[in-house]
Amino acid sequence: MVAIAVIGSGAVGSYYGAMLARAGHKVHFLMRRDFDAVRAQGLDIRSHRGDFRIDDVGCFRSSEEIGPVDWVLCALKTTALSQARELVAPCIGPDTRLLALMNGLGVEEQFATWLPPASVFGGMAFVCINRGAPGVVHHLDYGRVTIGHLEDDPGALDDLRSLLEGAGIEVAVAPNLRRARWEKLCWNIPFNGLSAAAGGVGTAAILGHEGLRAMAERAMREVVLVANADLAALGLASLLDEETTVAAMFAQTATMGDYQTSMTIDFRRGQPMEVESILHAPLLRARELGLDVPMMSALYALVDAADGRREGH
Amino acid sequence: MVAIAVIGSGAVGSYYGAMLARAGHKVHFLMRRDFDAVRAQGLDIRSHRGDFRIDDVGCFRSSEEIGPVDWVLCALKTTALSQARELVAPCIGPDTRLLALMNGLGVEEQFATWLPPASVFGGMAFVCINRGAPGVVHHLDYGRVTIGHLEDDPGALDDLRSLLEGAGIEVAVAPNLRRARWEKLCWNIPFNGLSAAAGGVGTAAILGHEGLRAMAERAMREVVLVANADLAALGLASLLDEETTVAAMFAQTATMGDYQTSMTIDFRRGQPMEVESILHAPLLRARELGLDVPMMSALYALVDAADGRREGH
Repeated sequence: MVAIAVIGSGAVGSYYGAMLARAGHKVHFLMRRDFDAVRAQGLDIRSHRGDFRIDDVGCFRSSEEIGPVDWVLCALKTTALSQARELVAPCIGPDTRLLALMNGLGVEEQFATWLPPASVFGGMAFVCINRGAPGVVHHLDYGRVTIGHLEDDPGALDDLRSLLEGAGIEVAVAPNLRRARWEKLCWNIPFNGLSAAAGGVGTAAILGHEGLRAMAERAMREVVLVANADLAALGLASLLDEETTVAAMFAQTATMGDYQTSMTIDFRRGQPMEVESILHAPLLRARELGLDVPMMSALYALVDAADGRREGH
Repeated sequence: MVAIAVIGSGAVGSYYGAMLARAGHKVHFLMRRDFDAVRAQGLDIRSHRGDFRIDDVGCFRSSEEIGPVDWVLCALKTTALSQARELVAPCIGPDTRLLALMNGLGVEEQFATWLPPASVFGGMAFVCINRGAPGVVHHLDYGRVTIGHLEDDPGALDDLRSLLEGAGIEVAVAPNLRRARWEKLCWNIPFNGLSAAAGGVGTAAILGHEGLRAMAERAMREVVLVANADLAALGLASLLDEETTVAAMFAQTATMGDYQTSMTIDFRRGQPMEVESILHAPLLRARELGLDVPMMSALYALVDAADGRREGH
């Protein structure tokens, strides 16, 4: 039995945390919105792979009440990244490892500014999931988690893989975390970015509009360019070439129906969007590398402006 | 006394038509929304240059009732361009000349497909103007009209200049109409386009956001490139260079306060935007010329998609 702290109990944190709890681990959830409902009624997972319920959920209002654990599963939205240290730190002991199940570039690197890099792992969840009523999570499709280690030590991933697979979670192992992050950004920048920039649309609206589709493709080509320059600068193997990446990702996207990206949903709800980690950090890296990326710049500008209007700036 | 038909009695048509009527010309307004109010109460111009009222306004529900005139002043929104021939034709006699006081590229050329090109003129109004209650026009600032002749015959502009100046309208004469159209597009494409693409913002929001401002500048540079290629292909003198154009137009825009472009206003009201004439026609010309213009393409795509959502497509 492993002691786990789930920091950030949105849909992703609640779902994977519940899987781990079901497998018998001692899972502590840091909860805000759903605290009362979950304490009273438990955590209710409605999944196309079979519904299940965790009745006696270890839920807490502060990380101090949780204290040090074996694994921190940090599933905060990156808009809360500046609070991550404060929320995570009370759960860190000498042997604690951390899995950042979060979007975008540079998240693990930020944890490594105050945690030993060898203890920092990244996870990319490919999952369609939503929060329903308090204490209810709707798991709609997929579920695989791609995991990597910040120092790319292959042996370091064995425990995490066993932990997740033992809980029934499909796992893919990324030999290089940064490369895996960029692979995900090849999709997230064009499709998350454009879904918000075009006013809160789904993937079908992008693919079905000649001009938006062309923007998405152009943005994706820019991301491949930046990714490969970044990976080369770090002495890492490059991504696949532009043509292959674009063809594969557009083909995959066409199978998704009218998928509503996280930014689409945030945009429509007037909630903060993950602009910094998904759109800005990669753009800053492009500039460091001296690359001109007009479409990445445009998507960042448009979504940042929309995010600013939300805040009433 | 000149007989004039104003086709399209929005703010621009009503304002300039009222100026001409005040000067003693026989002005016939084709009216829809404001017909009853104007027939009952006249046309009420509230202008920073002095209010005035036309009491006995010649207003008509159909062009057939107007019949042939000396001058047609066509101030339709270009979203109604496909109906322009039907609305204008009944007012055309053997000696009728037409002034298209409309936005974008290719408007005069469309009239010249069925009118003698020598009788077609274009006008670009630099004016801040809004419709108020039915029959009321608020003239906020500026008012100059730049006029050109489709065949660039300098002598052909004398009558029009006299007509307008005689009515107290400030006139600038463009030696080349197409060049003047492109000059206006250098501003309209970035600022109209971006004001709508960024969700209905004014010029101050664009200038005040680093990323949006950079997009506007990039789009403007693309327009200068296309304009000069187009003008060169037609054997016409080029625009000023990119640097001079960008510097001058951004300096001018900074003096405008938070100007709400026509697309901003249309976007916010959920009305059709002049996407085709302002954003699409110049883009099609760029493609004909073999030029890659990512930012012009992006602005067209985003605004076209927004316009399509309005229609519920």
